[in-house]
Amino acid sequence: MKIIVVGAAGTIGKKVVENLSKRHEIIKVGRNSGDHQVDITNPADVAALFKKIGNFDALVSAAGEVHFGPLESLGQEQLQVGIKSKLLGQINLVLEGMKHISDRGSFTLTSGILTDDPIPNGTAASMTNAALEGFVLGAAIELPRGIRINIVSPTVVEESMENFGPYFRGFDPVPAAKAALAYEKSVEGLLTGKVLKVVGAV
Amino acid sequence: MKIIVVGAAGTIGKKVVENLSKRHEIIKVGRNSGDHQVDITNPADVAALFKKIGNFDALVSAAGEVHFGPLESLGQEQLQVGIKSKLLGQINLVLEGMKHISDRGSFTLTSGILTDDPIPNGTAASMTNAALEGFVLGAAIELPRGIRINIVSPTVVEESMENFGPYFRGFDPVPAAKAALAYEKSVEGLLTGKVLKVVGAV
Repeated sequence: MKIIVVGAAGTIGKKVVENLSKRHEIIKVGRNSGDHQVDITNPADVAALFKKIGNFDALVSAAGEVHFGPLESLGQEQLQVGIKSKLLGQINLVLEGMKHISDRGSFTLTSGILTDDPIPNGTAASMTNAALEGFVLGAAIELPRGIRINIVSPTVVEESMENFGPYFRGFDPVPAAKAALAYEKSVEGLLTGKVLKVVGAV
Repeated sequence: MKIIVVGAAGTIGKKVVENLSKRHEIIKVGRNSGDHQVDITNPADVAALFKKIGNFDALVSAAGEVHFGPLESLGQEQLQVGIKSKLLGQINLVLEGMKHISDRGSFTLTSGILTDDPIPNGTAASMTNAALEGFVLGAAIELPRGIRINIVSPTVVEESMENFGPYFRGFDPVPAAKAALAYEKSVEGLLTGKVLKVVGAV
């Protein structure tokens, strides 16, 4: 398969590439690195990316930012970080990508454990992740030509604990390579409309 | 209790007012009707509303719009309808209202069944409703002073079938008065961080 990985240089993206490249042609996309660069928050830029790449069989997105901060400090600006980037950025990849993807191709997006398991300072992230899961559930029944869509909801990964550990007190992190399995399951399996959760013991 | 109902003239809002006004002081808020008018999409307007009303004990919101249309037709404009109105509009009520609500007061927002049970043309609505539920889950653990927050997720109501029936083929609608019970449970009970689902047989 010809597989586009957006966020290919990220902690999870790297492991997805490492895994899927054993058996597939991978096109690495990043904000500032990879085979192609894209600003996922800009629909015109996303459209241009797909025109350059042409037809493909699967897209994995492990990209997008959210704001962490106390509920009291949230305003439009803080909420819009996740809406513009992680939410609408990943949705842009689907809405533009569906014009170029093969019949029975697949999209695999990324949410995160905070949809189900909230943390202090995490309300904007819980909102953004949940929104993505709702989008995927809706899009799965609307996509034409047998195109599938799933979303991976990983817990915090070991490789991110240095940066994010203080937010995720008491969470049992998993290696990013384990999270990569969920993307493999989505791309190489036949599921659609599923939230693939990657969880630790706690 | 002094209870603010935003969307008081709406199909569900009217039944919430009818129910809660038997035992409580109700302040009706609408876009163009009620005791006070507000544009929930405008944070400054929302802040001004709470300054006028002063302290209160509970807020119910059954307000906000979403776009219905095929996945292929969705773009920034269509997705932003729900984001600006139903999602960020209701969130504005919480973020501004939390400065004025009593200790142990409550917020009750509204999502809808499409979070769990998608329909054709409903992807933007599924996204918006899910985002609201994620926000509520996150906010519930962050709110100070014993303030609670829940969200009611109603199926389509009988009174809306004339307008929305074609979207909700095969759904078993419930009377809006039944949906009003969920708001009563949220306001007069002690739950927090819950999605209160109001469901029909199908």
